[in-house]
Amino acid sequence: MSDTTLADTAAALDAADELAERRELFALEGSVVYLDGNSLGALPRHVPDRLADVVTREWGELRIRSWDESGWWTAPERIGERIAPLVGAAPGQVVVGDSTSVNVFKAVVAAVRMAPDDRDEILVDATTFPTDGYIAQSAARLTGRRLVPVTPAELPAALGPRTAVVLLNHVDYRTGRLHDLPALTAAVHEAGALAVWDLCHSAGALPVGLDEHGVDLAVGCTYKYLNGGPGSPAYLYVAERHQDRFDSPLPGWNSHADPFAMAAGFAAADGAVRGRVGTPDILSMLALEAALDVWDGVTVEAVRAKSLALTDFFLECVEAYVPKGRVTSLTPVAHAERGSQVALSCPDAPAVMEELIARGVVGDLRRPDVLRFGFTPLYVGFADTERAARTLADVLAEVPAPQIG
Amino acid sequence: MSDTTLADTAAALDAADELAERRELFALEGSVVYLDGNSLGALPRHVPDRLADVVTREWGELRIRSWDESGWWTAPERIGERIAPLVGAAPGQVVVGDSTSVNVFKAVVAAVRMAPDDRDEILVDATTFPTDGYIAQSAARLTGRRLVPVTPAELPAALGPRTAVVLLNHVDYRTGRLHDLPALTAAVHEAGALAVWDLCHSAGALPVGLDEHGVDLAVGCTYKYLNGGPGSPAYLYVAERHQDRFDSPLPGWNSHADPFAMAAGFAAADGAVRGRVGTPDILSMLALEAALDVWDGVTVEAVRAKSLALTDFFLECVEAYVPKGRVTSLTPVAHAERGSQVALSCPDAPAVMEELIARGVVGDLRRPDVLRFGFTPLYVGFADTERAARTLADVLAEVPAPQIG
Repeated sequence: MSDTTLADTAAALDAADELAERRELFALEGSVVYLDGNSLGALPRHVPDRLADVVTREWGELRIRSWDESGWWTAPERIGERIAPLVGAAPGQVVVGDSTSVNVFKAVVAAVRMAPDDRDEILVDATTFPTDGYIAQSAARLTGRRLVPVTPAELPAALGPRTAVVLLNHVDYRTGRLHDLPALTAAVHEAGALAVWDLCHSAGALPVGLDEHGVDLAVGCTYKYLNGGPGSPAYLYVAERHQDRFDSPLPGWNSHADPFAMAAGFAAADGAVRGRVGTPDILSMLALEAALDVWDGVTVEAVRAKSLALTDFFLECVEAYVPKGRVTSLTPVAHAERGSQVALSCPDAPAVMEELIARGVVGDLRRPDVLRFGFTPLYVGFADTERAARTLADVLAEVPAPQIG
Repeated sequence: MSDTTLADTAAALDAADELAERRELFALEGSVVYLDGNSLGALPRHVPDRLADVVTREWGELRIRSWDESGWWTAPERIGERIAPLVGAAPGQVVVGDSTSVNVFKAVVAAVRMAPDDRDEILVDATTFPTDGYIAQSAARLTGRRLVPVTPAELPAALGPRTAVVLLNHVDYRTGRLHDLPALTAAVHEAGALAVWDLCHSAGALPVGLDEHGVDLAVGCTYKYLNGGPGSPAYLYVAERHQDRFDSPLPGWNSHADPFAMAAGFAAADGAVRGRVGTPDILSMLALEAALDVWDGVTVEAVRAKSLALTDFFLECVEAYVPKGRVTSLTPVAHAERGSQVALSCPDAPAVMEELIARGVVGDLRRPDVLRFGFTPLYVGFADTERAARTLADVLAEVPAPQIG
């Protein structure tokens, strides 16, 4: 298959892409192919104007009145409702605020408190993004439980009558492997335990189906496929059936049933609001709210279909362009096991990624040897994808392969 | 004393005020007297342009590169160094991020872990802003300690060999009373315990002297006298002598010694960075960083002198204008016991504050009966102060006093 053929294929795929025009909603001028939206999503074009209004009018002119008049106070739950359909949650179960790490802490401690006392083990995905493991370890220490790291493959055998809670990552941040949320959640429930899912690398890229699959609690960031901006607030999902028992380790005044009573005793609010803590960071939060407008009229199913087409096509182009054995894909071939990124291992990955970025193909590196390429269906096209693979092949041809052994 | 005399006095005081021209740095057009800077500081005029650059260029154009090239990654500690001199801290001890509530949790749990195991009591200011009490209660529960609420006056007698940690508020959010940080810290140390101070209502309004007075840990928000914007990130101070033992209950990947190693095991970073948790909320954080420019060339001592002059003058005007017995000041007369706000109790406070705001004098209400007036020396003047008292007297004359009993 010649280069021309794949470029022609790319053009045809772009022409048939129902999401193609969404790209215009993003600030993506110039000749860069941005394949790092799985780390930081691109800027939706309308966000700067909205944020300028928040700053100059809502803060600058209305000042304190904006807590009521501009809807600042209710932003965490209002924005939660915008995220809910993207993760398959009915209303009233998602609240936005704090970092992913802080939400993992809330979710794991609260889940442990829902489990019987004699269940003394917290199982955590050993391949997860490390912060989840660190925070789960802290939650275990503070609640007197034992942390047991297991790979998702080992999980079913590790579950048992001592399991209180299982913390899993929907997509492995390193390899892009998609774990089987329905089956693993069912196995956790079969064992009588609760399942907490980290959706950082799946929300906005593929259907999650939190309600459908009976997930207990979930957390996720909003700055990857949700394009909320650098370090935008994370979210917490608490299934409605658990909300009355959600006993937060961070019961700040924002989660009080009557925050402005300034009561000395804590009384938890009803519903998802119980997951709030302190005063929300309004500027970051309202930038996120505006950014979510790009999802209006888009289905997660359409996004998933394009995501798989993009990663399939990228792997096809890499296969065609890159000399055999020069890179190894860590990303599963099976669609059911693939997230929205392709990870290629390569001994000289740092030098290769540096040169790729210099040539306008922006992915990222996970030390020591992983090249990550994230495919954001709302703004990445097939011609971008073909160019990325072609540029990768050019770079690999010029950077001599290191001699191993 | 006639109205004219006090208005003349105000004009003379404004003319002699070395901080008067700072007001031009803030967006305070129009005829509003803004006395709610102790809840949400006014917008510094240059912040919108800076934030627009962060959004459109740093996020929109540089995207992921900004974590290095725009200094996003190091923002929490860099902005901490900007706050440090305002609270009397030498470099390397303050880090910015998360909400005040979350930082209270980090500080109290970490302080408990520094105390011997047989010290099983956490003392908390019973008059404090409620979130501190709620979070301290959670910290006590998770660390197996007992929470003992005491007023600052009762504190010395309550200290003893069982005291592990004391959490105190520097200024009472309701009354404006300034607690004696040096003496109370010394008493806590005398008892062999650690002192954690909440500086929300003092930082930026008066000298704190964290290092000078040997405070162990401290937290504070940045959206009141530091003008960082709604819900801007809070900060955490860990005295250098304690940093090696600072064992965070929220050990996120940002507090790891080598975050990008993505190591399965946690190894805490050195220094103040150990207080970080997850990915920082860059938009809110960099708005705060820009806002701190208004402090360039200002001493906290000058701010304190003006603050006391403003609150003295306000009390003088209230005494002159308001009929006897109509309001009662909850704010101490003694300068050593006064923060930067005046709190007046008044049975019909809700109706009075509503009418005051309608007439352009913006304070706030603390239920059921407290009118709060915050004096931010960087942008409140003496003529503002005289007008506020005069308007208050007008409103009180028109709103009939409720009959009690």
